[in-house]
Order: sequence, then C-alpha cells, then structure tokens
Amino acid sequence: MVAIGGNSLPGFVRPSLHQHSLSAPAFGSARFPAVISFGSRVILRAEVENKDSRAVIVNGLGKRECDCETEFDATLGNGHAVNSGPNLGVLSTVGNSTNIKWHDCSVGKLERQSLLKQKGCVVWITGLSGSGKSSVACALSQSLHRMGKLAYILDGDNVRHGLNRDLGFKAEDRAENIRRIGEVAKLFADAGVICIASLISPYRRDRDACRAILPDGYFIEVFMDISLEVCEARDSKGLYKLARAGKIKGFTGIDDPYELPLNCEIVLNGGSPCEMAEKVMSYLEENGFLQA
Amino acid sequence: MVAIGGNSLPGFVRPSLHQHSLSAPAFGSARFPAVISFGSRVILRAEVENKDSRAVIVNGLGKRECDCETEFDATLGNGHAVNSGPNLGVLSTVGNSTNIKWHDCSVGKLERQSLLKQKGCVVWITGLSGSGKSSVACALSQSLHRMGKLAYILDGDNVRHGLNRDLGFKAEDRAENIRRIGEVAKLFADAGVICIASLISPYRRDRDACRAILPDGYFIEVFMDISLEVCEARDSKGLYKLARAGKIKGFTGIDDPYELPLNCEIVLNGGSPCEMAEKVMSYLEENGFLQA
Repeated sequence: MVAIGGNSLPGFVRPSLHQHSLSAPAFGSARFPAVISFGSRVILRAEVENKDSRAVIVNGLGKRECDCETEFDATLGNGHAVNSGPNLGVLSTVGNSTNIKWHDCSVGKLERQSLLKQKGCVVWITGLSGSGKSSVACALSQSLHRMGKLAYILDGDNVRHGLNRDLGFKAEDRAENIRRIGEVAKLFADAGVICIASLISPYRRDRDACRAILPDGYFIEVFMDISLEVCEARDSKGLYKLARAGKIKGFTGIDDPYELPLNCEIVLNGGSPCEMAEKVMSYLEENGFLQA
Repeated sequence: MVAIGGNSLPGFVRPSLHQHSLSAPAFGSARFPAVISFGSRVILRAEVENKDSRAVIVNGLGKRECDCETEFDATLGNGHAVNSGPNLGVLSTVGNSTNIKWHDCSVGKLERQSLLKQKGCVVWITGLSGSGKSSVACALSQSLHRMGKLAYILDGDNVRHGLNRDLGFKAEDRAENIRRIGEVAKLFADAGVICIASLISPYRRDRDACRAILPDGYFIEVFMDISLEVCEARDSKGLYKLARAGKIKGFTGIDDPYELPLNCEIVLNGGSPCEMAEKVMSYLEENGFLQA
C-alpha cells in the first residue's frame, strides 16, 4: 500500500518513475507533489477508494492527453484541493457525475502566481445587509489595483444576475448560492486571483463549507462587526423597512438569524471603507499573499 | 423618455450631471458609458421596464456605497453584459432573485485589462469526446503563459468535481452544466483573464446561450473537427467502448447527437496540439486580445 497525497492505493505497485517538479505542488495539501512519467504507452489502471472525500475512483487510464514541452504523457495524482479529493487522473464519480476525469496542465497555480507576483486566495466578507461589505470590497479592490495586484469581486447580488439567477431566497437556495460562490471563488484563487467574495452568508455551516474546499490559510474570513441598529439606521437599500413591514420574509437580522463567526481571520468594526480595507491589506501583506 | 444604455426610463428627468469617464465603458455594449454624480444625498427612484432582458427594475436607490478616491456617491447605469440587463444600480428582480442590486466598483474590466496587458475573453473549445479539446486547451494555456498572459482553463470534467458536482448527465443537467460554465467563463473574462472553456457542449443552443451573455467578439468558438471514427479509435478514456456496449447511455456521437457549429470562429482539424494552439494564438493576436 502506497500513500500518495493522503490517499492509499491498495495493491498499487509503483512503476519506474521520473519525478518532475515543474508544476507541483500547486493547490492544496491533497495535491500530489510530483508528476510521474511512464513513457508514451504505459496505461495505469487503479482501483482506489478515496476515504476522505466524495470521490470514488472506479477504474481508468492514466494517459496524459497534453503536454508540448515535456516528455511524459502519463500523470498520476492530480487531486485539486482539500476536500475535492485527488482522483489520479482517471475516471471517477463525483456527486452525480459519472465517468469524469481530472485534466491537469503543466501551467498550474504556481506558474500563474509567479506571473502575477501574488498568491490567489479568497477574502470572504460576511455581515448584515448594510454593514458595508460592498464598500470594503471595493476599497480593497482599489488598494490592490494600485499595488498592481489582480483582484476580482464576487458580489452576492451580482452573481444572482448571472450564475445564480435560478436561485431564490429559500433556505436551500441560499445555501446553494453560497456553495456556488465558494466554488467559483476557489477557481479564481486557483487562477492566481485575489478573489473578494462579498455576501451576507449568515450561516456558519455555509461559510465553513466554503472554507473547507480551500487549502488551509487561503480562506480569509472578514466579519463586518456592525450592529443591527447601525445597519438598520443606514438601511441603504430600504430593505430593513420592507422586512419590518413584513414585505420581505426571512430577512437576516429581522426574522432570520445571523450567526457570528467564531474564528474569522479579521474583524472590522468601524472606520471608513478605506481604513477597513487597509486592515485587510495588512493581513494579506503579512501573510505573504502580495508576493508569489 | 430618455434612452440610457439601451434602456428607457419613462418619466425620467435627468438631474444636473457630472460625467466621469474613469472606469467605463467596460464590459459589453449594454454598459452605461459614464458614471453620473448627484451629490451625496440625492436618491434616484426609477420605474423601468427593461425590454431586452429578464431584469425588471421595480424601484430603488441610486446610492453608490463605495469609492475612496472620487467625489460622487451615486451611480446611474451599470449594466453588465449584453443579456444580463443593466439595472441602474437599483433593486431588481432577476430570475428567482428579488431585491438584488448591482454593485459596481471603480476598478473595472478596463483597469484589470490594463494591468494584465491583455483583454479578457472566452475561448470555447467544443468537440467530441477524444477530439483533443483538453490537449489544445493545455497547449494554448502554455503558449499564453510563455507570453506572460494570464489564462485559465475551465474544463467540463474538472468543474464537475466542484461547482457542478450536483449535476448528472440528464439533458437538463447537461444544459445547466454548460450554462454555469458559460457564466463562470464570463466572470473570468470580466476579470481580464483569457478563459479557455473545454467541454463537449454538443448542442448549438447551449453554446449560443453562452455566446449571448458575452459582448460581441469576446466568445471565440473553437471547433475540434475530428471525425467520430478517429475519436473512437483513440478512445482515450475508454468511454466509446462502454457506450457501444450500452453501459453509458446518451453518449455524444453514439446515441446522442453532436450539433456542428455553424458560425464558429476557428476550426481545428488536425496537427499536433501545439500546432492547433498556435492557430488560436494567431486569432487572439490578430483580434487584439493579447494587448490591453
């Protein structure tokens, strides 16, 4: 039994290997740390049960479909992030999807980070409606841009104009809204972008689920610690008034709870949007995200 | 009646304006070409029916929540892309989402493009299983990276490990899979990234729907024109064999159709992945995507 990237392959015998270090390790602790060459005709078949994820690999071909510059054409081990589970480049079943295969490429997260001179991550801004999430997101985006860093804002409302236009505000729709934004944010982080997600995300379990799909340290939870009274007094969208009048049901802070973060990375509780954004900038700087 | 960004505002009276040109026009023909200042206390209310999109604006506040550097705090007109419908920064209903608001930021697509020295777009690679989509996507990603350009691959199979893990291969799930990838690709293009989507996407209507949410010219359809016979002979995932044996139902090319593109931008019908990727590179170069 050979442990690879946190997984065990019963009965797996390691072939003669050439270890390449070109693109790995990339994204997440579960990523296999090297690319393995079998030569052009060797096919790998494996029966693997991935114990710590939802992926079960049933069988498959290790043939690598693509590479211009390097000799190998077979890849073993290319799991993506903590909870998605490595699937060894073979066919697998994930959720409702059968017979899918992870396609890897030698231009990986590290190469993109090197190009951008920054580390992709997710800055997740949570808080009540009117707490200033969008203002901080925008100010942060401006500060990063001034430094020549690439950021992108995923705004909860904006995403409902496109990707999540099929979702309403029922409990399951809210959860799915957050799940999808978390998954997209992960893709942006993998692309090397500092992704700023700005949405109420009132439930701890939903936020934690988004944290869990990212490598440790790459999900930076920012809590807008502004009281309901202040947010309601601002009422920048006029929504609290509608909620108090019973015209909006299930409104966070009024007739639906906001669950305070227990272990967020940053708490913002006042000051101008720029001042608050500067606190996030300091965190990013201190934790190495503003360099490759 | 005043026409703004393709929309008409019945009874709208234009206030005294300061036109700013800082971040617009940005993404798509429907984006309003300027930011308009009303001073810090003016609230805009509008009743608007947006005839060419699914968005209907019911009322709202034009208050801009965020800007560190400029004087204005009210924004009028910030529609996003062709078919998502501008909503003038006010509350709107889109699909199943009520009371949502478009949040804009003065760091827009143009600023990100300028930073990256490229134009964000979507290269949509379509074709049969085994036609070489992933190989071309990877080779293209490598070529772009060598030029210092930021690209990101959205692979149909990969996305099913995360964002689309809830989807199977029923007709409606396939359509939703493609819709979501199209929406995410649009976000990446808006972020300034050259987004390479690689998925069978067998139906014309699904591909065309993804094209329709992007500005004209920014959806570059690449057809892998490789015959079923060649793809089946390769059978790189072993799926054709399973499909022929009846173990996979609804398999494209076997018992489900592939609808040939009628007006794609690029047809690739042979050569090495690198040679095919070079054709796409030439297209990107000639059409100005490799500079801001």
